[in-house]
Amino acid sequence: MAETTEQASDIVEAWLKQEGAINPQKAPRLQELLAKVPRKELISIVERQNALRAALALRLLPREKSIAVFDALDAKHQADIIDELGNADVYEFFDELEPEDRVALLDELPAEIADRLLRSLTKSKRDVTGVILGYPKRSVGRRMSPEVPDIHPDMSVDEALDMLRSQSDELETIYTVPVTRPDRRLVGVVSLREIFTAESGVSIDSIMQEPLFAYASADAEETVRWFLPLDMLALPIVDDSHRLVGLLTFDDATDIVEEADSEDSARAGGTEALQQPYLSTPLLKLVRSRIVWLLVLAVSALLTVQVLDSFEDTLSKAVVLSLFIPLLTGTGGNTGNQAATTVTRALALGDVRTRDILSVLWSELRVGMLLGAVLGLAGLGLATVVYGADIGIVIGSTLFLICSISATVGGLMPIVAKTIGADPAVFSNPFISTFCDATGLIIYFLIAKTVLGI
Amino acid sequence: MAETTEQASDIVEAWLKQEGAINPQKAPRLQELLAKVPRKELISIVERQNALRAALALRLLPREKSIAVFDALDAKHQADIIDELGNADVYEFFDELEPEDRVALLDELPAEIADRLLRSLTKSKRDVTGVILGYPKRSVGRRMSPEVPDIHPDMSVDEALDMLRSQSDELETIYTVPVTRPDRRLVGVVSLREIFTAESGVSIDSIMQEPLFAYASADAEETVRWFLPLDMLALPIVDDSHRLVGLLTFDDATDIVEEADSEDSARAGGTEALQQPYLSTPLLKLVRSRIVWLLVLAVSALLTVQVLDSFEDTLSKAVVLSLFIPLLTGTGGNTGNQAATTVTRALALGDVRTRDILSVLWSELRVGMLLGAVLGLAGLGLATVVYGADIGIVIGSTLFLICSISATVGGLMPIVAKTIGADPAVFSNPFISTFCDATGLIIYFLIAKTVLGI
Repeated sequence: MAETTEQASDIVEAWLKQEGAINPQKAPRLQELLAKVPRKELISIVERQNALRAALALRLLPREKSIAVFDALDAKHQADIIDELGNADVYEFFDELEPEDRVALLDELPAEIADRLLRSLTKSKRDVTGVILGYPKRSVGRRMSPEVPDIHPDMSVDEALDMLRSQSDELETIYTVPVTRPDRRLVGVVSLREIFTAESGVSIDSIMQEPLFAYASADAEETVRWFLPLDMLALPIVDDSHRLVGLLTFDDATDIVEEADSEDSARAGGTEALQQPYLSTPLLKLVRSRIVWLLVLAVSALLTVQVLDSFEDTLSKAVVLSLFIPLLTGTGGNTGNQAATTVTRALALGDVRTRDILSVLWSELRVGMLLGAVLGLAGLGLATVVYGADIGIVIGSTLFLICSISATVGGLMPIVAKTIGADPAVFSNPFISTFCDATGLIIYFLIAKTVLGI
Repeated sequence: MAETTEQASDIVEAWLKQEGAINPQKAPRLQELLAKVPRKELISIVERQNALRAALALRLLPREKSIAVFDALDAKHQADIIDELGNADVYEFFDELEPEDRVALLDELPAEIADRLLRSLTKSKRDVTGVILGYPKRSVGRRMSPEVPDIHPDMSVDEALDMLRSQSDELETIYTVPVTRPDRRLVGVVSLREIFTAESGVSIDSIMQEPLFAYASADAEETVRWFLPLDMLALPIVDDSHRLVGLLTFDDATDIVEEADSEDSARAGGTEALQQPYLSTPLLKLVRSRIVWLLVLAVSALLTVQVLDSFEDTLSKAVVLSLFIPLLTGTGGNTGNQAATTVTRALALGDVRTRDILSVLWSELRVGMLLGAVLGLAGLGLATVVYGADIGIVIGSTLFLICSISATVGGLMPIVAKTIGADPAVFSNPFISTFCDATGLIIYFLIAKTVLGI
């Protein structure tokens, strides 16, 4: 049959979706269809399958395509799939990965499988992998490509071009060329484009530039946050003695940013990042990514029960007060979340640093008071009309205070977290909501007791 | 004096921070210090300044550095700074921008200034800018680089290398080379690396590959979400007749993703994205980015007042019920947020598509029920111990139902939003919280009335 590539990928996906194994009689037909699906579509189809079905698709694909697709998956997903594949496939996939991707996969595997896979590598590949494994998790060293060209300042551009041409097979990129002295110390950087457009006979020395670089032990996210906006293709990575040990390419850098953003966005919603596509995540992993936070938040919410319990007397004298509880706590939570979201993002992008804490405090206090003034006046008016002036004054002034405090606290929390060395996203939005809930209730009932005289 | 570059940037930043103009006598010293600060640091310092101080720094910098720094700023920030700069500076900065960055800046400027700037360009630059301006906002055409090389399939690699060398000055990238027929139709793509390592005399035809491409009118975010994971340096962009009109480079692509992620993260926190660094955003803009959402949310929270009002009778008979209001609404909001955050992210990454709505419904319902079972049992136990079995049963079963419903609704909302053509992040977390609050309260009081018989 002659399907278009779109029809082919739809049929493939529908077949894979039928839970369980594929009828062996249908395998040749599926194989034929898979061959029609372009690489980009294949990756996106396989990403959405659970481990069993992803493994099935990989086995049915032609070797080269199968390796390319496996390569493009997240390490967590790769690790799940490995369980479902035969040994021969596993060794081959593992062997074909880039060294830094290999290390990411090893991190996700149980120790004995990781060991077995490591031993399956050739000595030189095992050595390269070992060097990367030696750097701390989340460091640049873990994510760099360890293959680097061997270009010296005294070479002519012609010699450099020849050298790059002959080393090209082993290198991940030849577009950014770090220049080193014979002792491997980094002394400059030059782009292939500059070498390529320079006049014949010119020395590398005369066209190379001061190198930007990062230390292999530096934090990966912090490094890529300043590196990516510079629009460079690759960043030389050096060890503590300033010797070149690798290159961080832009595609590895965008992966790091994407992971960090997924993590921040997950934390802001009070969950852990999934680290693999939603539809291929097993149900219990989804539950596990949420239950801890949910319990922690529920336990902290017991504070609000406590606060209300201690004002039960006031509540029973004026039941009308309880009508506004969700409105007031909700508004406090929203104001706090807005501030926390904005400042967390600014910290991640490097727009705000921990030493800017006073500027942030001053901004958020004023923003909070302005927001509180607007909401407070609206609340005063509305509540007065429906429930009388007393309640109007209580609601209006509570809203003003809650907004001022919540914005300030919400804005400062991410900076405080970062100062004490925690991830700013740890004080996630739901956590701030709960904090604002309890504070807001105390303010509310103190004002109510004063104004209403109960 | 002989400062290190770090000291120099600290001093520069401290000086700039003193509100108001710099003492003219100090300008030469500041200029001397600025010259010591590397480009990467300069960009990050200027990014954090308000328009007045950023303009001051740009005026004090050497021409070339000043252009590079201006170039690296966000379009919104550039537009603010232009107000503070002299005309000569403005024309020069504008002239030096890449065409796609020029268009982004034009979008932020008032029409008459935009017109004046456009007229200041040479005809050829104005034409290129005009082509980009012709594509809809948020389309790929707006973000592509319109300069493309002129390489044909019948050229030899040697001819192609010569051609690239001679065109290099006008091109943004020479690393990804689209191959076109004389009528400008795109027929292939080849990397400089492949041309460079091919044997002399080989034709482009024989080494070029099937091109991946995007239409200039396609949505920019959707395009880069599939393009970036492919780790390519640039993507050919074609018009509706398949004629090559530009290249989307990876650095423009990462900018698009960064903006989209900032927007999603802002929306999840119930604010609008700032589009410029936090510390350089004027106070009233901060307030404006939050007040609309806050008012909308407060108005929807009036629903909770209504719900509680209709149960006032039940409340006054059992004041103890009001103690759990923040805990129950909070937990519902948190569960809904977790689901919404996860699904919104999965939609953005393309892991989930709108047609997966039933799979998501089925997953979230089960996840919600499992979460609800855990929290419900904990609530049942705790509340029974402190407030008796009746209250325990009410709290436990309410928690179970609230979690099941909130997870399902939270998970579906982003998909529903996308289906009706809205931004999935529009149903932001605070919005879902408010919805869950009202639903949760109704469930709570219905169960309470039944169990307590009031």
